[in-house]
Amino acid sequence: MFKTIRRVTILAPTGVRNLSLSAATLEKIGFIGLGNMGGGMACNLIKKGNSVLAFDVVDSNLQAVVSQGGVAASSPSAVAAECSKIVTMLPNNAIVEQVYSGPDGILSTIKEGGFLIDCSTVDPALSKQLAITAKSQGVEFVDSPVSGGVNAASAGTLTFMVGAETEQNFTIAHQTLQHMGAKIIHCGGVGTGGAVKICNNMLLAVSMIGTSEAMNLGIQLGLDPKLLADILGSATGRCWSVDTYNPCPGVLPNVPSSNDYKAGFGTALMTKDLGLAQDAATRAGAATPLGSLAHQIYRTMCNNGFAEKDFSSAFKFIQKK
Amino acid sequence: MFKTIRRVTILAPTGVRNLSLSAATLEKIGFIGLGNMGGGMACNLIKKGNSVLAFDVVDSNLQAVVSQGGVAASSPSAVAAECSKIVTMLPNNAIVEQVYSGPDGILSTIKEGGFLIDCSTVDPALSKQLAITAKSQGVEFVDSPVSGGVNAASAGTLTFMVGAETEQNFTIAHQTLQHMGAKIIHCGGVGTGGAVKICNNMLLAVSMIGTSEAMNLGIQLGLDPKLLADILGSATGRCWSVDTYNPCPGVLPNVPSSNDYKAGFGTALMTKDLGLAQDAATRAGAATPLGSLAHQIYRTMCNNGFAEKDFSSAFKFIQKK
Amino acid sequence: MFKTIRRVTILAPTGVRNLSLSAATLEKIGFIGLGNMGGGMACNLIKKGNSVLAFDVVDSNLQAVVSQGGVAASSPSAVAAECSKIVTMLPNNAIVEQVYSGPDGILSTIKEGGFLIDCSTVDPALSKQLAITAKSQGVEFVDSPVSGGVNAASAGTLTFMVGAETEQNFTIAHQTLQHMGAKIIHCGGVGTGGAVKICNNMLLAVSMIGTSEAMNLGIQLGLDPKLLADILGSATGRCWSVDTYNPCPGVLPNVPSSNDYKAGFGTALMTKDLGLAQDAATRAGAATPLGSLAHQIYRTMCNNGFAEKDFSSAFKFIQKK
Amino acid sequence: MFKTIRRVTILAPTGVRNLSLSAATLEKIGFIGLGNMGGGMACNLIKKGNSVLAFDVVDSNLQAVVSQGGVAASSPSAVAAECSKIVTMLPNNAIVEQVYSGPDGILSTIKEGGFLIDCSTVDPALSKQLAITAKSQGVEFVDSPVSGGVNAASAGTLTFMVGAETEQNFTIAHQTLQHMGAKIIHCGGVGTGGAVKICNNMLLAVSMIGTSEAMNLGIQLGLDPKLLADILGSATGRCWSVDTYNPCPGVLPNVPSSNDYKAGFGTALMTKDLGLAQDAATRAGAATPLGSLAHQIYRTMCNNGFAEKDFSSAFKFIQKK
Repeated sequence: MFKTIRRVTILAPTGVRNLSLSAATLEKIGFIGLGNMGGGMACNLIKKGNSVLAFDVVDSNLQAVVSQGGVAASSPSAVAAECSKIVTMLPNNAIVEQVYSGPDGILSTIKEGGFLIDCSTVDPALSKQLAITAKSQGVEFVDSPVSGGVNAASAGTLTFMVGAETEQNFTIAHQTLQHMGAKIIHCGGVGTGGAVKICNNMLLAVSMIGTSEAMNLGIQLGLDPKLLADILGSATGRCWSVDTYNPCPGVLPNVPSSNDYKAGFGTALMTKDLGLAQDAATRAGAATPLGSLAHQIYRTMCNNGFAEKDFSSAFKFIQKK
Repeated sequence: MFKTIRRVTILAPTGVRNLSLSAATLEKIGFIGLGNMGGGMACNLIKKGNSVLAFDVVDSNLQAVVSQGGVAASSPSAVAAECSKIVTMLPNNAIVEQVYSGPDGILSTIKEGGFLIDCSTVDPALSKQLAITAKSQGVEFVDSPVSGGVNAASAGTLTFMVGAETEQNFTIAHQTLQHMGAKIIHCGGVGTGGAVKICNNMLLAVSMIGTSEAMNLGIQLGLDPKLLADILGSATGRCWSVDTYNPCPGVLPNVPSSNDYKAGFGTALMTKDLGLAQDAATRAGAATPLGSLAHQIYRTMCNNGFAEKDFSSAFKFIQKK
Repeated sequence: MFKTIRRVTILAPTGVRNLSLSAATLEKIGFIGLGNMGGGMACNLIKKGNSVLAFDVVDSNLQAVVSQGGVAASSPSAVAAECSKIVTMLPNNAIVEQVYSGPDGILSTIKEGGFLIDCSTVDPALSKQLAITAKSQGVEFVDSPVSGGVNAASAGTLTFMVGAETEQNFTIAHQTLQHMGAKIIHCGGVGTGGAVKICNNMLLAVSMIGTSEAMNLGIQLGLDPKLLADILGSATGRCWSVDTYNPCPGVLPNVPSSNDYKAGFGTALMTKDLGLAQDAATRAGAATPLGSLAHQIYRTMCNNGFAEKDFSSAFKFIQKK
Repeated sequence: MFKTIRRVTILAPTGVRNLSLSAATLEKIGFIGLGNMGGGMACNLIKKGNSVLAFDVVDSNLQAVVSQGGVAASSPSAVAAECSKIVTMLPNNAIVEQVYSGPDGILSTIKEGGFLIDCSTVDPALSKQLAITAKSQGVEFVDSPVSGGVNAASAGTLTFMVGAETEQNFTIAHQTLQHMGAKIIHCGGVGTGGAVKICNNMLLAVSMIGTSEAMNLGIQLGLDPKLLADILGSATGRCWSVDTYNPCPGVLPNVPSSNDYKAGFGTALMTKDLGLAQDAATRAGAATPLGSLAHQIYRTMCNNGFAEKDFSSAFKFIQKK
């Protein structure tokens, strides 16, 4: 029963399962979507001994994985014709819908008994709908968006937030995800992985802009930025955006704000995730005044040249030039 | 030199001075403003062996301190006529201005060489102006707002954020503040104590409403509140409002949200602090879109019956009834 | 050509076509959705001499139209089996989708050469998609949302904003719409009727809350509400919410604010329209900070007991109780 | 009685007094603040036959008025030493305070029986305080901010919103103001002129940004900008920003948006007025969520290079670049 499953998960001290790796877990896995994130993830599957049949619309992405030992397929349906377990890592709702349900999509060739793991960040309602369609073909589907960026994808240290209807499905997903991540969390039924992801990113966006405002105001009022960050970080204003990813240049080393807001998590991507949160909030009738304003601020930043800058560049956007 | 002083403070591992208490530090101290916070603070000065001459406009507040060994004075000017070191803990700009500069105020009788410590949360610009006036009478002034609520005031475990022009002034303030607090931070020149306080509280308000929105949205999307709080708390959405003061009833024990939002830090007080932040931001030309919206949300809550509820009741306000 | 068509429309002094009514325009028309708005509209078609085959899921709605001379049908597909021209007036995207594309929907039985007029307020993207599907069956589709409430629907004085691909389609729609409205505007291709509607309502929501804020602030500052409304109405703050639908009780007679915010345009309906605007804005990457905040304010009002009050009750929501 | 006075004003068809000009009204008037607005106003007083003793800190401003027949004074106190009726037109609270109450200010030399008219846009609370101080010296004070820009100041067609304690004071102010304006409105007691001004400008800012959002969204959705403006202007979205000062380039001729947002009412000035509105709202506890966000948007625009552009450039700011 689901309730039991979730309770077990909650009771575990870290909320994380650590099942031991074994040779038995090595599998033939289809992988579709080999961009910055997916490419690193597929390579980790290969490194850990799995056999990977890969596809990407961009040929250079595909070749990069082939050069690490992957085998190239010509389409999602070609992958699904040969693999019963498939991982997808795609940029948005429309492409996920196309890759799964399009004319040349996974669901056109996948065989009964198949198992699909979507690691994309998409609308939880889309995940639920895909799970229903898959189920009607005798195929299981879990959503499993990730936390952690390109570096974590390469290093195999991602966090996976898994929405799986049953304990068994979580275990089957875990077998594969453990080769790509350090932390694998069962969040509930299908769609809850995405739900956690968009709730977290909405709060992250709010905290980051709030931190940018507080740091900028404090500096205008004559405070030393490092001292301010130190005090906020040990007071009730403490948050990840203050103590780990401070948006004010020079406060922390090795964060995007100290490197002209290059790399990191782009403003356009954050804007997309905030759009998913707003869609879900509207359907749920959940009021999100700050989340909604954060979305608009990031969209305005995109429209003013910040699309490719790290999302901590909110600090720069609000600053007097 | 100020730069040197601040650097020393920053280099200290915790950013906090721990000078040892000694008999030599026991003093005759004036204390004005004996409400929920000031009453506990004055009593701690008495407990630690200081002699306290106290005043409050509310007689029962004054008698409570007298019953602990304080001596009653009849006005701020009467306190200042007898004490060269005075602590004030008052509710707002207007009252601070009155108590210092009014016809019966401290500055009408304080003698040259006096030392004034204002622990109220007020506009940093007011603190600077009072310091200039005091200086013109040969009197030193530091601002030193607190973090921590009524319980910390009683227990003597407050954090003081001190704005002092010189290292010497910080040391003189520290001698007295150590009897009432656990952590005493030198933030810079006069006004910086208040600046840190309002920056922190603005970020706190933003984080708290953001957390309320994320928790409420997640629950609407089918997530278990405790599991969601756990995951957010170990992800990039981590903040004090998630892991220490969660606004969703039942997630954490012993926080106001689990006690019908009673006690804690009232919405009206938070609204006042956000007003100070907005005043300062307007003068500085610092953009604070989320801080400003948080201010409006808390004001709207005050206008809809939440004034006396803990500020984490933002969760309840946005929830579907 | 479309450009020519639109130019003609613009050049007309009022932007409105007034083609003369003639016996030749009387038709057999299907009508689906007979709620507060649709019921009045269908009755006007009957009164003007048209023959109406009607359907609604609520039997009492259907009987009300039958009692005026309509004929009852058992489903959308039953209507479409007999009528080549159909008007729909439905509450939201999901129901429109169901009524058109569902298993018992219009498109399952409509014959080639049919003509569909959707007066619902829905996502312009949905209208475009329905038009494409209809076209593939040899059927024309126009979107034609209305402005004006229940009274205008009964009186036959609605404004229709029509999105029609061609001048001919506009003319065909006009033949029917003229029996239900006083003003019929060609806004461009399919979806533009809805686009105009959601842009207008977003601006209306912003103006209404802005007016509520200005009236409430002015009153707090000691101004007489009527005098304030008079001055705003003749200055740069002039808008429909000030001079025609003032949200402050007692300023204007015969508006919802002077009748405890009863009747009028409900907050829940405004919230729905603002959701459509946000969906469209997100897809278009168009920044709408105030429109988005207005959406959140109306949603928060819905969650606090204002769902059925007129949307001018924003004045009451922000007021000190 | 004030109630009677106001009722009379309200009953007048236009809300405006039109007392006939007569030779008897020509006076010796002091004028302080001869910038873009004040310079034109002072010249109109001269043209209408009044004798003007003028002062400005910028000598070229002063010489421009002297060249039209004014007489130069060396300071506010020098003006007040010779004139019993003085008009001031100054940029902000601080300068008004200085010009009235500073060491060389008006109140240091004005004689009993004097009459002061402040046309600056300032905090209504400052106006009230100046009126009290003036009264204690036997001097009357009215606030009288203007609506209409530089052109209206030159042409003598400004609107004055007068806060005067008595009908008599309004009449005395009117005698002088009629030479500079086309419309003179009695808003109530001292401070109400400024109150009306900031309420109007807050609503104007909200409407302008709302209009910018609606126009931009509509264009993204495929609408013709002129057609959209036409429809909004005849629907419930109607407002001054749509039909008289449309922010979308090309929709209307002869407005700043059709001239690269040059001239007009600068974003920095609008930001200042919104700051006054926020100060007043905070003191009054009046919730202004949209007014507050509009303030932040204009401040962010100032920080991103729009300070000197017309405030309708909000359209450009939110647009995709």
